[in-house]
Amino acid sequence: MSAGLKGIRVAVIGGDDRELYLIAELQKLGAYIVGVGFEKAAVPGVHIASLKEAVTQVDVLIFPMYGTDERGVIKAKYTDSQIMLNKEILQAIPAHVPLFIGWARPALKSAAEMMGIRIVETANMNETAILNSIPSAEGAIQMAMENTVITIHNSESFVLGLGRCGWTIARMLQGIGARVTGVARKGTDLARATEMGFRAVHFSDLEDEIGRAEIIFNTVPSLILDRVMLERVARDAVIIDLASIPGGVDYEYAQMLGIKALLAPGLPGIVAPKTAGKILAHVYPQLILRHLTTVKPSMES
Amino acid sequence: MSAGLKGIRVAVIGGDDRELYLIAELQKLGAYIVGVGFEKAAVPGVHIASLKEAVTQVDVLIFPMYGTDERGVIKAKYTDSQIMLNKEILQAIPAHVPLFIGWARPALKSAAEMMGIRIVETANMNETAILNSIPSAEGAIQMAMENTVITIHNSESFVLGLGRCGWTIARMLQGIGARVTGVARKGTDLARATEMGFRAVHFSDLEDEIGRAEIIFNTVPSLILDRVMLERVARDAVIIDLASIPGGVDYEYAQMLGIKALLAPGLPGIVAPKTAGKILAHVYPQLILRHLTTVKPSMES
Amino acid sequence: MSAGLKGIRVAVIGGDDRELYLIAELQKLGAYIVGVGFEKAAVPGVHIASLKEAVTQVDVLIFPMYGTDERGVIKAKYTDSQIMLNKEILQAIPAHVPLFIGWARPALKSAAEMMGIRIVETANMNETAILNSIPSAEGAIQMAMENTVITIHNSESFVLGLGRCGWTIARMLQGIGARVTGVARKGTDLARATEMGFRAVHFSDLEDEIGRAEIIFNTVPSLILDRVMLERVARDAVIIDLASIPGGVDYEYAQMLGIKALLAPGLPGIVAPKTAGKILAHVYPQLILRHLTTVKPSMES
Amino acid sequence: MSAGLKGIRVAVIGGDDRELYLIAELQKLGAYIVGVGFEKAAVPGVHIASLKEAVTQVDVLIFPMYGTDERGVIKAKYTDSQIMLNKEILQAIPAHVPLFIGWARPALKSAAEMMGIRIVETANMNETAILNSIPSAEGAIQMAMENTVITIHNSESFVLGLGRCGWTIARMLQGIGARVTGVARKGTDLARATEMGFRAVHFSDLEDEIGRAEIIFNTVPSLILDRVMLERVARDAVIIDLASIPGGVDYEYAQMLGIKALLAPGLPGIVAPKTAGKILAHVYPQLILRHLTTVKPSMES
Repeated sequence: MSAGLKGIRVAVIGGDDRELYLIAELQKLGAYIVGVGFEKAAVPGVHIASLKEAVTQVDVLIFPMYGTDERGVIKAKYTDSQIMLNKEILQAIPAHVPLFIGWARPALKSAAEMMGIRIVETANMNETAILNSIPSAEGAIQMAMENTVITIHNSESFVLGLGRCGWTIARMLQGIGARVTGVARKGTDLARATEMGFRAVHFSDLEDEIGRAEIIFNTVPSLILDRVMLERVARDAVIIDLASIPGGVDYEYAQMLGIKALLAPGLPGIVAPKTAGKILAHVYPQLILRHLTTVKPSMES
Repeated sequence: MSAGLKGIRVAVIGGDDRELYLIAELQKLGAYIVGVGFEKAAVPGVHIASLKEAVTQVDVLIFPMYGTDERGVIKAKYTDSQIMLNKEILQAIPAHVPLFIGWARPALKSAAEMMGIRIVETANMNETAILNSIPSAEGAIQMAMENTVITIHNSESFVLGLGRCGWTIARMLQGIGARVTGVARKGTDLARATEMGFRAVHFSDLEDEIGRAEIIFNTVPSLILDRVMLERVARDAVIIDLASIPGGVDYEYAQMLGIKALLAPGLPGIVAPKTAGKILAHVYPQLILRHLTTVKPSMES
Repeated sequence: MSAGLKGIRVAVIGGDDRELYLIAELQKLGAYIVGVGFEKAAVPGVHIASLKEAVTQVDVLIFPMYGTDERGVIKAKYTDSQIMLNKEILQAIPAHVPLFIGWARPALKSAAEMMGIRIVETANMNETAILNSIPSAEGAIQMAMENTVITIHNSESFVLGLGRCGWTIARMLQGIGARVTGVARKGTDLARATEMGFRAVHFSDLEDEIGRAEIIFNTVPSLILDRVMLERVARDAVIIDLASIPGGVDYEYAQMLGIKALLAPGLPGIVAPKTAGKILAHVYPQLILRHLTTVKPSMES
Repeated sequence: MSAGLKGIRVAVIGGDDRELYLIAELQKLGAYIVGVGFEKAAVPGVHIASLKEAVTQVDVLIFPMYGTDERGVIKAKYTDSQIMLNKEILQAIPAHVPLFIGWARPALKSAAEMMGIRIVETANMNETAILNSIPSAEGAIQMAMENTVITIHNSESFVLGLGRCGWTIARMLQGIGARVTGVARKGTDLARATEMGFRAVHFSDLEDEIGRAEIIFNTVPSLILDRVMLERVARDAVIIDLASIPGGVDYEYAQMLGIKALLAPGLPGIVAPKTAGKILAHVYPQLILRHLTTVKPSMES
């Protein structure tokens, strides 16, 4: 936990409020921060630089959680300039410098591989994903509260998929007082659901069970709630879909049936930026130390 | 629970969606419903009447939760006409007919008393109030989710006042994963808070403790969060005030300090009308039977 | 909490391991302790005295939780001598010195009243009783674990009476994973039970419901589980009775039916003496300060 | 769930009360039961046979959870005869008949492999193990209640190892009201522990943290609590060791230090035989169907 980062130079590139919490935490651990895209934020002790400058000055590069768009542009809340991760930049990155990024597009990954750059995708790591499931789950529950005429308490709430996010939602719903049904495929997950006090239902029985649901949280990234399934869903049920776009619901058909179905963007950085920032600040120091096998502490910092 | 209302004539007067659930439930128990202010709702089996007609035809009168305004006007979602509870109407109410109403204004109470009309205020009854605390608490937690940059999970959440609503909020916050501090005055409440796993703090120690709070839920209907107390509150804390207007916060001073303070209307009928309707449907049948000591079942229904 | 007892002389008379924790805590707060019946315990800083000597030397007298027997004898684990609270001792107690005792027998109370001695019964105080309900509830649950062929988890567990102890048992059972039914008479308790996620059953419906119970915890000190009720109880159900002797079960009839029924002595001092001692140490300092309206801090201590 | 076993012949061989529940459940699903070692139990509809007879008459063989002893003897509560799984019996088992057994000794496994017999070990399957963790966890908590002078509530309880049993213990302890620390090695487990409200500690930090523990539950089957670690444990802490023999504690050294350390046999069949039987009855029907790829429903049953 007291992972000392003394003498390590870290570039934090773009992002939003989360990165401000991250920067502060890295500084506390002794890191020297080069900031790219923070002109409009008052972050004391940060050396502001362009991306091109930064990549040659540091031991570690941290890009934001949501990565780049298809052109390589990096979202950066605290700058008016455009930051772009292009071929030129990639070529300038020294071989030993790891590049941390939430999600990397396939093009970026293949380019990096060809150039021998170590890309570390962090959003999908178990630890990050489980911790980020907390703000995501709260965001989903908040949406359910806003969009139902019933309380979560005593509701028949279904959680489809008991993975990193599903467990968190299920536990919180139970904590509020819902009657929770956990739907999964693996015997091990169904057994754990039973132990935790959820009604455990196998996906193969979902069609027979879904009719009793008042609120449905889907976490499975495939078309679970298709036409056949939606036919069985109560017309006044509300569906909160946490699966990544295009989601797990036949939205058109749901609308036709009059079933309210909502895609939860589930972005931790929007729901609870401070908590999401603390999660980064918890995960990154360990990650940096683990990937800096050949750290050359810079003397000038 | 199987409280038979066979042959009992009940007038349901005004209100909102909650009353629709209530009507359906009373009908299931065998009651004959006279509806006042439901022209625009399709409620099968209900005899639509004016208030004047209704009061002479029934055994029981049910007015809405939020009662009347200062002129005696009754809110009614499903009519365009104005319904007014005035002296003329009161005089027409037979002596044996109980008048149920959520909150009764002092003027109404004294008028009723002079005329010998039995008024039963239902909103403040323990059973109703505790059940209604569920949607109120969820509404308050939803507000906190919407207005904080942190998650409820792992937050330092304070609940001021452990009464009918305070316990519900505290338990739900804990269920989500917050670190809950319950603030009360009575040793019995502090002991129970300890048993339930909350940090128990006496109001006399609040000034020393409030500084650690990240989210504050106030349920005490007096100026708890005055200037002196607000000075101790963290500037980025969020206050959700559930006390009835004017509330328990010095809002002006909070704004001056830059502390976000919000008055939670906490109306169960808005947060979760269906659940709130079911609560009425749970409470009223028992209440009707208890107050109809001299029921004269009408033969014509 | 930081209730300073500097200069206050307290006699702790008899008791068991709990009193050792109490003594240590009172000393930490600055009290000067006179110990009666602690010859065999090594308690540093305690002035050992006879009861007769003690009563004239102190500001406060603390007798054990379970009081005296019918002859006035006080249980004392750490002495071989007999300590007796008789008329002679009572007459020696100065008027301003409060006498704290868990339970006082009627004879003691009337004698004290005649002599103008302030007796404060502590076992039945809400705060003490709620905190003591924690070890009692754990003791009862332990008994249920030892005496059933099923797990608490997923069992149909009934808690009869939702009072100071009933709530604690119900909440713990739920925490382990039982399906909990709370049985009470007051609408306010039934509503709270619903809020907390228990199935709420009115005592008037118990006869119809008791048949589904697998484990029954009784906290009501009257004959709830009489012949008629026992006839409805499943033969393989287990009854844990926390009501004070003679308890709330027709034990003979239960035995005849082959139903296992056990009286839980529920003595916190036996189940968890250290916790029970900490509870005393939590409750007494406040109590002492509240009752020492005219404290005369002794200079010689 | 409605896994029909119509026409399938199952031999249930030895075991204890759990097997009685299992037999009844298999019969409900339509199976024809051949019972070996049930002479002293009154189990209606069961064809009693010797093991030698049974193996040639059935489609499936079910041996008990704890398997055989080193000589091949099978524990059987309801017979006075000795049942032995020896070479002769193994040779008589037809090739298509699966042999279910809780734990199989290495010798049995290698013999079976040579003879082409399909052995399915069930005790260690995730689903069985997680469900069995429920009675095991309750047994461990019961031991802690019996052997501590404090309550579980508010105790500093450590769970070493967050696996199939560890999660169950941790959640139950939390449900009772303990302050739970979960100790694990994987980031994913530590993140989940945080989400569930436990204090998450990495095994590499255990030495610094163990000193605060009042109750320690070990589930790791290796010598975690060795001399070095025990030195840091509080002398009045209690250790409940759920690891299989020889367990995870240096018992001799613990005794020398005066630390109470207990090996929890953790046998679900002893703690809660009925629940353990229901677990078998839940797991086996699915297992049978999955392994009977070439079921030849017998006409004669």
